[in-house]
Amino acid sequence: QPSITLFGVVDARVAIGRGSLADAVQLTSAGLNTSRLGFRGSEDLGGGLAASFWLEAALSNDSGAGGPTNTNNQASGAGTGSSGSQGLTFARRSTVSLTGRNWGELRLGREYVPQYLNLLFDPFGNVGVGVPLTLSSIITGVTSTRASNGVAYFLPAGLGGFYGTARYYLGENSRDGAATEDDGNGGGVRIGYASGPLDMAVATGRTEYASGDTRQTNIGGSWNFKVAKVFLVIGRDRRGALRGRSWEVAGVVPLGRGEFKLALSDYSTDAAGNPESKKVALGYVQHLSKRTALYTTWARVENSGGAAASLNGSSTAANASSSGLDLGIRHSF
Amino acid sequence: QPSITLFGVVDARVAIGRGSLADAVQLTSAGLNTSRLGFRGSEDLGGGLAASFWLEAALSNDSGAGGPTNTNNQASGAGTGSSGSQGLTFARRSTVSLTGRNWGELRLGREYVPQYLNLLFDPFGNVGVGVPLTLSSIITGVTSTRASNGVAYFLPAGLGGFYGTARYYLGENSRDGAATEDDGNGGGVRIGYASGPLDMAVATGRTEYASGDTRQTNIGGSWNFKVAKVFLVIGRDRRGALRGRSWEVAGVVPLGRGEFKLALSDYSTDAAGNPESKKVALGYVQHLSKRTALYTTWARVENSGGAAASLNGSSTAANASSSGLDLGIRHSF
Amino acid sequence: QPSITLFGVVDARVAIGRGSLADAVQLTSAGLNTSRLGFRGSEDLGGGLAASFWLEAALSNDSGAGGPTNTNNQASGAGTGSSGSQGLTFARRSTVSLTGRNWGELRLGREYVPQYLNLLFDPFGNVGVGVPLTLSSIITGVTSTRASNGVAYFLPAGLGGFYGTARYYLGENSRDGAATEDDGNGGGVRIGYASGPLDMAVATGRTEYASGDTRQTNIGGSWNFKVAKVFLVIGRDRRGALRGRSWEVAGVVPLGRGEFKLALSDYSTDAAGNPESKKVALGYVQHLSKRTALYTTWARVENSGGAAASLNGSSTAANASSSGLDLGIRHSF
Repeated sequence: QPSITLFGVVDARVAIGRGSLADAVQLTSAGLNTSRLGFRGSEDLGGGLAASFWLEAALSNDSGAGGPTNTNNQASGAGTGSSGSQGLTFARRSTVSLTGRNWGELRLGREYVPQYLNLLFDPFGNVGVGVPLTLSSIITGVTSTRASNGVAYFLPAGLGGFYGTARYYLGENSRDGAATEDDGNGGGVRIGYASGPLDMAVATGRTEYASGDTRQTNIGGSWNFKVAKVFLVIGRDRRGALRGRSWEVAGVVPLGRGEFKLALSDYSTDAAGNPESKKVALGYVQHLSKRTALYTTWARVENSGGAAASLNGSSTAANASSSGLDLGIRHSF
Repeated sequence: QPSITLFGVVDARVAIGRGSLADAVQLTSAGLNTSRLGFRGSEDLGGGLAASFWLEAALSNDSGAGGPTNTNNQASGAGTGSSGSQGLTFARRSTVSLTGRNWGELRLGREYVPQYLNLLFDPFGNVGVGVPLTLSSIITGVTSTRASNGVAYFLPAGLGGFYGTARYYLGENSRDGAATEDDGNGGGVRIGYASGPLDMAVATGRTEYASGDTRQTNIGGSWNFKVAKVFLVIGRDRRGALRGRSWEVAGVVPLGRGEFKLALSDYSTDAAGNPESKKVALGYVQHLSKRTALYTTWARVENSGGAAASLNGSSTAANASSSGLDLGIRHSF
Repeated sequence: QPSITLFGVVDARVAIGRGSLADAVQLTSAGLNTSRLGFRGSEDLGGGLAASFWLEAALSNDSGAGGPTNTNNQASGAGTGSSGSQGLTFARRSTVSLTGRNWGELRLGREYVPQYLNLLFDPFGNVGVGVPLTLSSIITGVTSTRASNGVAYFLPAGLGGFYGTARYYLGENSRDGAATEDDGNGGGVRIGYASGPLDMAVATGRTEYASGDTRQTNIGGSWNFKVAKVFLVIGRDRRGALRGRSWEVAGVVPLGRGEFKLALSDYSTDAAGNPESKKVALGYVQHLSKRTALYTTWARVENSGGAAASLNGSSTAANASSSGLDLGIRHSF
């Protein structure tokens, strides 16, 4: 039998949210890393060539439910994730790859869009109460994070610190001449450079919709000063005529087996009133081992111009603020 | 790669049901043990501390479908389990734990409610035609067996035979002042004692609903006489103003590589007419190995006061009786 | 822990379809082999007896979604496979078996119907643009490929080349005297002979429906001439009063680490106008290893008598033709 790696994360937290309209208390999943279950493996084909696969499902380990996926990069293909019935899907990643040592990797299936990866120059990621507004408020919808039916190319290692990826994906509508026949088609490109303490990248992506294309363009980077690692992200997004602007400045300070995390983020659009949200997130992680950690995160978001972002399941009126606290454990395997 | 245990049960039976209105013949799953597929593992953190996870899904191996879960301990979070579409969910158990050798275990996620565990002082369990009425007729609904979004504490081993658990779980409704904001919140406590041939425990639990709380209080125990192990369960349940009373007396007689099982059980409520069901179940299990067994179970239920319990998919009129027969194989891995 | 085999296929292809009404371009799964994820294992019980299980799920690895199953061999038990929400089900196979070296195998659960197996005397199988019309146009509906709730018996090995299976399955309707109470009940028998270059089998099967039973009877075989392996299938189907006739002639020519495949197939019914489709499929597979292959398939279907078969998601008017091209990679594990 070939070697297959079974892997996952089970992360549970008490999540408290306070908003101007309603508060919330939850025992939910994924405060430090997204809970998941996956299978992956690779095969050496000789001559520097390898084949590999990666199947990774999201998991709501507070109830045991899975998470839905999206089959066509459009609203019509979005899983509704009906209460309690949602089974496991490999929505986080479902790919097969052919890799050449010299020429890079060809990867087919569902995974991140290139421009999303820049938003991960960030200490909190797309999970928990600390998730930056660059991620949680983004206006680009269905393909802001991942896309299905894609063909991606990744540059090989060993290019003097340069790395990069380009990806094209299909909405798979019938080519019948309808205005929406290209809906869900799209692609993106990302080029980066990592050397010593520096890692930075630029990326852009677009998905076609008859109702108005979505676009994401961003730059992100990190510098590791050893006493602290700092992060910076700047993004410009569009959904049809609506424009969004975002930034994040963040840092991580390691301290023994723990680490402190701080992030400031901002998202605004040019909708009527120029709604804008500002967020501060503060976190501490205590590592019990490489696989297991205890963590706590506190965050607060302030809204203006009609924005109403709220945290941890609470509900907040336009222009009011919301805060939240996570207390949890992350175990990976 | 850390050590992960993949485990499961595939149990299939021919299930015949006879009722006064309609009979049924099925090739279905789970006559001796519930069919399941799971992943679990643990990590030694040093100093007597360990982290662990447990993901366990129900499985209908007659069709390959999974089973739904419940996300919020209320009707709104119940999976509808649509025909043929129901994927795998880790509805049986989905937990992450931190365990201290001296102080016990803290466990977060979805699993049994404490008071359910007493109902397993029984040779048939919640599966097959022999399932006692203490389990199959219980009036407490959604959280009678398991609850999601919970925090549980288990006493450590080595307390001179005493064991115990307390658990609190959340309905996770928005705290907006609505009458139903506490729906699905609840908890339970169980204390037991096991020593030599004796094992017994008391438990109680409650779940809040604006339409009327549900409560379960019970005592259960077993005594192993070697030639036979006998079981006793007595329960008192409530759902709003409706009260239920139940008892079960049962025994298991080992005989070579086989075992005979007998159980009498009763469930009645104070609804109009005082509906009551009485059941007798008789079973035989032939172990082919530790993992594989052949089994047969026969049961009959008699109804009075308007009760209409029926067995194995048959349908029975009020106050009529129903019987059923299972013939199956259980293979665990 | 017992030995469990985790296995699967991740197959992705660019699939182009051309039809008279609409074309299609997709990045989809399963062009050479059906994508899947499975768990299987067996236990030696001594004395020539063994127990085993097999759980195998279909997988749409272009999006990570699973595939639905059918719980009762009727339309009412068919999973709707809602967009993006469909979780993993073990719809391909979900069985538990008891096997005796001398007497054969008893297998319970969901799997292929016996008569389907003859349709696999074919180089393309039920996957990709090359799938023969004997499979893709068959009129027998829900149980044409698999059935749930079944009990199967397989002859043991060592019968001088003869092999065979009989299977009975249940629709599990309530036996309430309704006209449809037998709907979904059915069974089939298959007897074959394999020796040296020859492998051939006959099979027949029937499923009961009040609206008209479905029947499949077919003969299939292959002869391995070493420079080429040739295949022949002839089938007669019924769904109520509607009759279908089909045939396929095909061949595979191995060439170094590659193989050429050619298949001609035909399906016609006695519906008004005697609709008929004819198909030619041509394929090439380049094996990179035992587990990994690149492949391409081209096919064309011609319709007459009102038939409108189309390929790879395209749409074709009655009596028009359609063609399709696959280009893909298959990786198994």
